[in-house]
Amino acid sequence: MRFSSRESVSLKKTLIFFLFSICALVVAGQRKSVAEQLGYPKDAKLLIVHADDLGVSHSENAASISAMEKGCVKSASIMVPCAWFPEMAAYASLHPDMDFGLHLTLTSEWKYYKWGPVTPAHNIPGLVNKNGFFYSSVDSVVANASPAEVEEELRNQVTRALKYGIKPTHLDSHMYTLHETLGFLKAYLKIGHEFNLPVYITRQVGNNLHVNLDTIVSERDIIIDTLLTAEYADYKAGMVNFYTKGFKNLKPGITYLILHTAYDDDEMKAVTVEHDGWGAAWRQQDYDFFSSPLCARLLKENNIYVVSWREIRDKITHR
Amino acid sequence: MRFSSRESVSLKKTLIFFLFSICALVVAGQRKSVAEQLGYPKDAKLLIVHADDLGVSHSENAASISAMEKGCVKSASIMVPCAWFPEMAAYASLHPDMDFGLHLTLTSEWKYYKWGPVTPAHNIPGLVNKNGFFYSSVDSVVANASPAEVEEELRNQVTRALKYGIKPTHLDSHMYTLHETLGFLKAYLKIGHEFNLPVYITRQVGNNLHVNLDTIVSERDIIIDTLLTAEYADYKAGMVNFYTKGFKNLKPGITYLILHTAYDDDEMKAVTVEHDGWGAAWRQQDYDFFSSPLCARLLKENNIYVVSWREIRDKITHR
Repeated sequence: MRFSSRESVSLKKTLIFFLFSICALVVAGQRKSVAEQLGYPKDAKLLIVHADDLGVSHSENAASISAMEKGCVKSASIMVPCAWFPEMAAYASLHPDMDFGLHLTLTSEWKYYKWGPVTPAHNIPGLVNKNGFFYSSVDSVVANASPAEVEEELRNQVTRALKYGIKPTHLDSHMYTLHETLGFLKAYLKIGHEFNLPVYITRQVGNNLHVNLDTIVSERDIIIDTLLTAEYADYKAGMVNFYTKGFKNLKPGITYLILHTAYDDDEMKAVTVEHDGWGAAWRQQDYDFFSSPLCARLLKENNIYVVSWREIRDKITHR
Repeated sequence: MRFSSRESVSLKKTLIFFLFSICALVVAGQRKSVAEQLGYPKDAKLLIVHADDLGVSHSENAASISAMEKGCVKSASIMVPCAWFPEMAAYASLHPDMDFGLHLTLTSEWKYYKWGPVTPAHNIPGLVNKNGFFYSSVDSVVANASPAEVEEELRNQVTRALKYGIKPTHLDSHMYTLHETLGFLKAYLKIGHEFNLPVYITRQVGNNLHVNLDTIVSERDIIIDTLLTAEYADYKAGMVNFYTKGFKNLKPGITYLILHTAYDDDEMKAVTVEHDGWGAAWRQQDYDFFSSPLCARLLKENNIYVVSWREIRDKITHR
């Protein structure tokens, strides 16, 4: 069998990719689990109980603060470009021991309540719609924005948060926009490395993008094993049931539980108007469950270690 | 008595100013009153019952719509740069017969809930604080912004409102910022003329700025005779009392009544936190009075003609 010159180059590339992948797998195999790195038993069930979307509204801020002070929510992330960001930033800066990260935001998804980027629009035209706001959908961001624009906006969001006195413990991505393309993912990781912060990423993200994550993350990044978050059908079937089962079936390794705490009040109903999914009633159910003694009892009964991004940042990212 | 050359020039300037002022007074004297121009008796008591600050929050939007649909509020103005502007714009564009103007906004005065300009910050650096928002106080706007920057931002606010389908009946000025300097006032009038819209201005504004308004307004502008609006002491003494007296003592001519309708709910309490003046409870009192049958009865008993900016725009500005 003979190969043409072009086929030969292609074969070489394939072989090199295989070799890299094998090396990466070996490295990953040698790497200690997140549990071990944090000082827990190797097969411990670790859970980050994490509220998203802080800063989006007063209702979300007030309910999330309550669920963190009195309930089971132990980590949360804040949306910098929203009008209620200063309220949440003031609280976070006065409570530096609590676990607040930044919910990096490139979309403005609600019908009548809007926000735009932190960066001047002329620097990042691909992130801005005709009205000067972010696009409503992730698809529009993917269609219009470049990784360079994304990187600039992310950097400015982190910088604004620092200016407001927040000491973020981590970064994650509103509506998972930064998990959508390899370019966005690299910008996200770059900003994490630049500010020395862990970023939320799962192995599934690598699978979706057909990339071996071990080839783009560093030793000081972590990869979350499992995402646990309610979908529309789970909400319709009842949140208590969903979370009870989720805690019971939790696997060893590190799971990221994403929830949304707000009150089912006039403001939140108006923010989420015409959205049954992730609406005000949904968020009230999350608030009710994660403020309940039942939640604390279930976590205990199922031998779950609730861990924070602060532990991850200080023991892994900053080591 | 002899004059030096410099004194002579100064004397000439003074004489010219006097002549202009006399001409202006003659023109003003000849000009028909607003009541006559609108077709009311010459000595009629005209009142614009006007709610400010629409768009600032969902609470303000919902209460103002209710007070306009069911109560005595017949005119209102909308803040374009705020996060809840799209909600109010959607309502206004669906109700083109209602009397909505634009509450031109250059300040962001609340502690934890913020907004910035519609124009990219690099074009109007003097209007933007270190966090990218408008300044909190009028004084800071006066100290930092040029009339050219103000003019550009006003133009962009009107343009955005038009894009959202609002057909504004008038322009007025949030926190009276545009009445603060002659440069700002001229920019405000220029934008009014450019979009063929009446602007809110009182004779008192001319007095404060030591300028004869008749020298800078056109025949198609109107000058409001009296502003009626509650101050802090009036609020403390009771709003029903203040408005009852205000209606009873109304003078012939055109009076602009500025009020603020919102609910005393969690959102509005948080927006106005640490501000007793113009706070949530104050706005609820305005809502209660202007939604009450008492208000309608008092207007009738005192022979007050409630007029709209639409009448002014269509019969005076557009004639």
